[in-house]
Amino acid sequence: MIGVPPLDDAAMRRAEARQAVLTKPAGSLGRLEDLSIRIAGMTGHLDPPLERAVVFVLAADHGVAAEGVSAYPSDVTAQMVANFLRGGAAINVLAAAAGARVVVADIGVDAELEAHPGLRALKVRRGTASITRGPAMSVEDARRAIDVGRELVRAEAPDIAITGDMGIGNTTASAALICALTGLDVLEVVGRGTGVDDAGLERKQRAVNDALRVNGDALRRGPLETLAAIGGLEIAGLVGVILETASSHKPVIIDGFISGAAALVAAALAPRVTGYLIASHRSLELGHRAVLERLGLQPLLDLELRLGEGTGGALALPLVRASVRLLNDMATFEDAGVSGRVEPTP
Amino acid sequence: MIGVPPLDDAAMRRAEARQAVLTKPAGSLGRLEDLSIRIAGMTGHLDPPLERAVVFVLAADHGVAAEGVSAYPSDVTAQMVANFLRGGAAINVLAAAAGARVVVADIGVDAELEAHPGLRALKVRRGTASITRGPAMSVEDARRAIDVGRELVRAEAPDIAITGDMGIGNTTASAALICALTGLDVLEVVGRGTGVDDAGLERKQRAVNDALRVNGDALRRGPLETLAAIGGLEIAGLVGVILETASSHKPVIIDGFISGAAALVAAALAPRVTGYLIASHRSLELGHRAVLERLGLQPLLDLELRLGEGTGGALALPLVRASVRLLNDMATFEDAGVSGRVEPTP
Repeated sequence: MIGVPPLDDAAMRRAEARQAVLTKPAGSLGRLEDLSIRIAGMTGHLDPPLERAVVFVLAADHGVAAEGVSAYPSDVTAQMVANFLRGGAAINVLAAAAGARVVVADIGVDAELEAHPGLRALKVRRGTASITRGPAMSVEDARRAIDVGRELVRAEAPDIAITGDMGIGNTTASAALICALTGLDVLEVVGRGTGVDDAGLERKQRAVNDALRVNGDALRRGPLETLAAIGGLEIAGLVGVILETASSHKPVIIDGFISGAAALVAAALAPRVTGYLIASHRSLELGHRAVLERLGLQPLLDLELRLGEGTGGALALPLVRASVRLLNDMATFEDAGVSGRVEPTP
Repeated sequence: MIGVPPLDDAAMRRAEARQAVLTKPAGSLGRLEDLSIRIAGMTGHLDPPLERAVVFVLAADHGVAAEGVSAYPSDVTAQMVANFLRGGAAINVLAAAAGARVVVADIGVDAELEAHPGLRALKVRRGTASITRGPAMSVEDARRAIDVGRELVRAEAPDIAITGDMGIGNTTASAALICALTGLDVLEVVGRGTGVDDAGLERKQRAVNDALRVNGDALRRGPLETLAAIGGLEIAGLVGVILETASSHKPVIIDGFISGAAALVAAALAPRVTGYLIASHRSLELGHRAVLERLGLQPLLDLELRLGEGTGGALALPLVRASVRLLNDMATFEDAGVSGRVEPTP
C-alpha cells in the first residue's frame, strides 16, 4: 500500500558516537539520548529541522455513539470543531505553548459544518454506521479516509507530525480495533473514555463484543478491512497521516488511545512504520499500555491524561526537540577541556 | 529560621472551580490540572507570571571525592563551571530550549576560578572536608552557604526557580543527608552517581556509613547541624534557594537527587516548604524515589536521567507553564457553546 523506508543505520551510529563524547557521564541523559539517536535514524540527519510541527486534529462521528457508550452526546464533535477553530480547546493552548500549528479537518462529522478559513472540509461521509450492527464503512471509504490523511500531510509538509482526534464514541471504535489487532480481551482494553459510569462501561464492553462478532468475517480479511469494519473515519485519516509522514522520513508523535489504535493499523499495513513513531504519553485509558507495548514504544510522559485532541503529543514536543538540541549543541569533552572518567580501580 | 507562608486555599478553590468548567471531560488533563491548582495555591493567582525562570546552578567541591567515590576527578567541578559559562553544558542547552536563564555560582569550588561576567563568585570556602572523618563544614559555614542561596534568589527575583548543582562527590554527600533525614538504610539510598563500578559503589556505601557514624552527635542536634556535618556547600546553597523562593510565594522546580537532598533539609527546617515544590523528574539514582515519597511529591518526568545541573528541572518547565496556560486560556463549556455530559442512566 505504501512503502516506509528502513531507518538510517549510519546516521544512528554517528549520533550514538557523538552522545558518547558530550560533556556528561555516558548515558546520563537517559531516554533523551535514545530518542535523539532514533530521530537521526528516521531523518538521516543528526540535526534535522523540527520547527514546522503540525498537530493534525481529525474529527468524525461514530454511529455507535447512539448506543450510550459516551458520557457526551454526538453533537459535541461538531461543537468541539468550532471550539478548535476559535482557539479555545486544550490542543490550541498546548500547541501555542509548544510552537506547533493545529490543522483541523472534518473527515466525517455528522453535521454540515459552516465554512471557516481554518477548517479543512474533507468529509468522506457523515459519520460511520454503528459497528455493533455491521461494518462502520466500506473498504473504499476507509481507503479514501486514509488518502485524506496522506494528502493533509503532503499539503502541510511538516518536519514532525503530531496525531490528534475528536469524535464522540471513538474510544469504543479504537478499543474494538485494538482487540481485533492484538487479540486482547475486551475487558483488558475497554476503558471509561470521557468518563462513563459503570452502566456505560458495560454498554461499551457489550458494544465492542458485538462489533467483533458481527464483523468477524471482515476482521479475518486484513487490516484495511478491519479498519473499515470496526474503525472510524478520523482513525483511518490518522493511519494516513502516520504512513505519509513516516514514508517521507519524518517523525510522528502519537497521542493517546485513539492515535494508538491508528498506529496499530498503520503498523499492520507497513510494519516499518513503528521506527518512525514517538509515543508521547501513556493514557489513563485502560488498554493503552498494551498498545504501546505491542508497538514496542515507551511513552515520554505519564501524566494521567485522557483527553485526546493531540494534547499529549503537543506536551511531548518540547522534549523531542530538546533531545535533538542536546545532541547538537552540547560541547564535547575535548572541546571543553573537561577531564574524562578516572580509570576503574584494579 | 525563615517563615514559609501557607498555600492560598481560596486561590486553589477558584482554580479548581475553573478546571471543572473548561471544555474537556472533568479530570481529563490529569496531573496538569492538579499542578495548576497547586501553583494557584503557591502564588495566590490563577495566572501568575512564569516568564522569568531561573536555573540556579551552584557549584562546590567535596572532600570525600578524594576517597574514590566518583567516576570523575574533582578537577571536573571547575572544568564544568567553565563549560557552563561558555554555554556548552546540558543545562545551557535545555535552559535555552525552555526559555530559562542559567545563573552559575561558585559557592565552594576547590580552585581559584577566573573572574567571568557570568560567574557569581560567592565562595564560602574551598570545598568541604571529608565527611568520613568529621564534619564537612562548620555550622556557621552552612548558615553562610544558605544565605548565599537566599541572596541569589533575592537578586534575581525569579517568577519560578529551578535548582541545579555541580560538584564531584555530591551524590555521596546527598546520600548521607538522605539516610540521616529519612532513616533509610545506606543500601537503599547510595547509587552509582556519575557511573562508578562495583568497587566504587562499595567505597561509596562505606563512606556514607562512616560519615553517619563519625558525625553521629551532630546528626542528633538538628537539620542545620546535619547539613553542616555531612552535606555540601552547593546543597546548603540550594536549601537557601528553596527557602527564599517559597517564602516569596513562588514555585520551585526541584531537579534530581542532590536537589532532593536539599529539599529534605529545607523541609526539615520549614515543613511548609513542600507546598511550593514541583518535582521535575524521578532520577535513576537509587534513593531518589524514596526522597520524593518522603516529600509527598510525584515527579512530572521519568526519563532515566541522572545528570543533575538542573537538567530535569529545565525539561519540566514547559509542562509547568503549560498547566497554567490551560487553566487560563481554554474556553469554558458556556463560552464555547459545547454541550455538557449527558445525564447518567438511571
